[in-house]
Amino acid sequence: MAKEKLVKAITSMEEDFAKWYTDVVIKAELIDYASVKGCMIIRPYGWAIWENIQRIMDGMFKETGHENVSMPMFIPESLLQKEKDHVEGFAPEVAWVTHGGAEKLEEKLCVRPTSETLFCDHYKNIIHSWRDLPKLYNQWCSVVRWEKTTRPFLRSREFHWQEGHTIHATAEEAQTETIRMLNVYAEFAEKYLAMPVIKGVKTEKERFAGAVDTYTIEAMMHDGKALQSGTSHFFGDGFAKAFGIQFTDKENKQATPFQTSWGVSTRLIGAIIMTHGDDNGLVLPPAIAPIQLVVIPIASHKEGVTEKATEVYERLKKVCRAKIDTTDNSPGWKFAEYEMKGVPLRLELGPRDIENNQCVLVRRDNGEKVVVSLDELETKVPEMLDAVRDGLFNKALANRTEKTYVATTMEEMIDIADNKPGFIKAMWCEDRACEEALKEKAGVSSRCMPFEQEQLTDKCICCGRPAKKMVYWGKAY
Amino acid sequence: MAKEKLVKAITSMEEDFAKWYTDVVIKAELIDYASVKGCMIIRPYGWAIWENIQRIMDGMFKETGHENVSMPMFIPESLLQKEKDHVEGFAPEVAWVTHGGAEKLEEKLCVRPTSETLFCDHYKNIIHSWRDLPKLYNQWCSVVRWEKTTRPFLRSREFHWQEGHTIHATAEEAQTETIRMLNVYAEFAEKYLAMPVIKGVKTEKERFAGAVDTYTIEAMMHDGKALQSGTSHFFGDGFAKAFGIQFTDKENKQATPFQTSWGVSTRLIGAIIMTHGDDNGLVLPPAIAPIQLVVIPIASHKEGVTEKATEVYERLKKVCRAKIDTTDNSPGWKFAEYEMKGVPLRLELGPRDIENNQCVLVRRDNGEKVVVSLDELETKVPEMLDAVRDGLFNKALANRTEKTYVATTMEEMIDIADNKPGFIKAMWCEDRACEEALKEKAGVSSRCMPFEQEQLTDKCICCGRPAKKMVYWGKAY
Repeated sequence: MAKEKLVKAITSMEEDFAKWYTDVVIKAELIDYASVKGCMIIRPYGWAIWENIQRIMDGMFKETGHENVSMPMFIPESLLQKEKDHVEGFAPEVAWVTHGGAEKLEEKLCVRPTSETLFCDHYKNIIHSWRDLPKLYNQWCSVVRWEKTTRPFLRSREFHWQEGHTIHATAEEAQTETIRMLNVYAEFAEKYLAMPVIKGVKTEKERFAGAVDTYTIEAMMHDGKALQSGTSHFFGDGFAKAFGIQFTDKENKQATPFQTSWGVSTRLIGAIIMTHGDDNGLVLPPAIAPIQLVVIPIASHKEGVTEKATEVYERLKKVCRAKIDTTDNSPGWKFAEYEMKGVPLRLELGPRDIENNQCVLVRRDNGEKVVVSLDELETKVPEMLDAVRDGLFNKALANRTEKTYVATTMEEMIDIADNKPGFIKAMWCEDRACEEALKEKAGVSSRCMPFEQEQLTDKCICCGRPAKKMVYWGKAY
Repeated sequence: MAKEKLVKAITSMEEDFAKWYTDVVIKAELIDYASVKGCMIIRPYGWAIWENIQRIMDGMFKETGHENVSMPMFIPESLLQKEKDHVEGFAPEVAWVTHGGAEKLEEKLCVRPTSETLFCDHYKNIIHSWRDLPKLYNQWCSVVRWEKTTRPFLRSREFHWQEGHTIHATAEEAQTETIRMLNVYAEFAEKYLAMPVIKGVKTEKERFAGAVDTYTIEAMMHDGKALQSGTSHFFGDGFAKAFGIQFTDKENKQATPFQTSWGVSTRLIGAIIMTHGDDNGLVLPPAIAPIQLVVIPIASHKEGVTEKATEVYERLKKVCRAKIDTTDNSPGWKFAEYEMKGVPLRLELGPRDIENNQCVLVRRDNGEKVVVSLDELETKVPEMLDAVRDGLFNKALANRTEKTYVATTMEEMIDIADNKPGFIKAMWCEDRACEEALKEKAGVSSRCMPFEQEQLTDKCICCGRPAKKMVYWGKAY
């Protein structure tokens, strides 16, 4: 029937995880492909998820004293080139504007791939004294990176994000900010996206172009691959020196300030899909679900059913983002439709339920059905939404625990990497050559050196020299 | 002293209105100039105004059933060219991306100047049946038009806006939508920006490229010039035909849908500045002011003053967007600072006020001072904020009334246009040649044919043939 048809319309995760993913983004109406290759149209349902992410996160940024600004989308070539490492990292993948109308521009402009250079240029204008510091700025915008291979949300030529850019009088203050924002990201991911993350620092090889240190939150997807979900960078005074930003300190001396930047993007939507989704489609954490509960009248041709369902809907609108579906599609079709869209709770209400002053609440995450008295809805629904969040978090955590391995020899590492997708914990000497050898021999990259270190052995898994750090290795999106 | 210094730091409106305007946008810290000519950095105080505009307006859009989406920022040249009038209107002023990284693109892409073509391309994919209609979409984004001469907020190469794009089964429904959104704009401008507007339809000459009809709200700035503040376009089925968008109607026949688009931009911030500002700086309507009330302790070195002021601030934070300034700057300096920033209400609290359980509230719009009992603050402050809004609206309306003239002959028209900046009402035969003659001889353009028509004479002011419409003429930003 209708439900069967819809469910079978997507590839199963087991069969082809990549195909399952693209089926979900299309069938759940998150995106449509655009006429420009590698770009995407984010449809209302997908954009509403991003708006919820923005709203919650923007509140967290403002609570921690940040202000939003808006920088231009264009960077003159000469400005991009001011910080050496930065331009090397980004120039190969930027889109260049060369003409305005019919005229060739005197200097070509790139569409921002990230805005450090623009912020530095602005800071140089507005920072003069210690009284002007710190500046704790953020912007919500889209950026462009001309990637060769793209996938919706995970890697696209244009993507939406927020980029925080702060500048401080001392290195300590900037370092504190870097870690503070990483913690904001981790809290957001775990509390609102129900997605457990590992906090740590990137190796030198994986650092952001121009950063002294890059911190990251790494999540594990359902298939065992890693997804870098947010990064926070400490720049030291490198950008400030390259751009000649100086200020008069409290002792009336000229000093150089210290900077940070940090960002998360619409990749988070990809992370949600691959962390919580199943063979029936999307499964959304309640905090960011555009629809948290859908009311579906059963046998709605019977007298009083639609009226009672509407009454229930009107009540629930006040406690959550509720929707009622009174279209003439069959209940089965509707079940499949809202399962595909990942709506956390479904409320079924039929003639017999009405007689008994009750309804059935069905959880999307585990299919659990609970009969609830209509008198208790206002307390039960928020409780069940919390339970869905907790259920999702625990399931994702169990998946990560199950798929986290320890390797103490290269043979083990290669065997695990080949046969058991997941995180592999192993010791490392901090030599880049060993990191590159692991990539070549086992196909894994370093995800991070976690804050929570363990002493697995005392030798580097690759070269046998003394180990300095425990690293999470894995294959990544 | 400090206040004197700050006040004198901006040019007076009388002396040089254009210079006064740029002084205000800089001194009130709304913008900074960017390294790309014609682009701007919108600073936290300016961006907070735009965020308030977005929040209120987005609520109005959602109440009228609209959904937000996100289209790519790039349009392939071939897509831009699909609608003939549209491409003629926009191609001369777009920015072209020709290279991605080091490689030349096969087809050049323009940075969207507006997104009709992108929406049409998407609609073609997702619209099949009458069940898929209407789509009531909107997006908040920035667009690029490579203008020769630019001014902050009024005309810049990149600007922020919202663009609504809707598609309907019938022409009537699309026409209704066009007018409905014009009314939303007018309500927003008058209620929240305290800016009276004239609603009307544009002449053919002033129509949006590709539109059948363009409706507009026109506001008058303090200097008598007009500012087009929002437009709403009815496209008929022209775009749908050019893009081959069709749907199966209820009779199972193929039919062509009808479209609209409508937009307002950060120009509105320019409009606010030039409608309400004065020689002390910005004057903000309370609804969109980032700070609605600032608490300034007087003689704050005296015991208990800062404490009491903080207590008052904590109470007022719950009824409005309040701020307290406890820095060591003098009260005079602070008065000038928050006047420059256009904060609607100032609350002064000194030792004698505390003794008398009172404070002084000062209105930014007219300087009125009111002594208010501290017990009544929670009711008095919202009342006074409303009074500021009404005061601003009435002042702006009086300015418009005073500067609206009637011309019945070309001599009168030229005389008024030369000597009395403002709106000039005059009759017109609807011949484009007369419109062009008025531009050439009197330097005025048609602002709109207002919905509220008057029969001033029965002859066209230019050619003397029978008049068909009363038009508002004027000089415009």
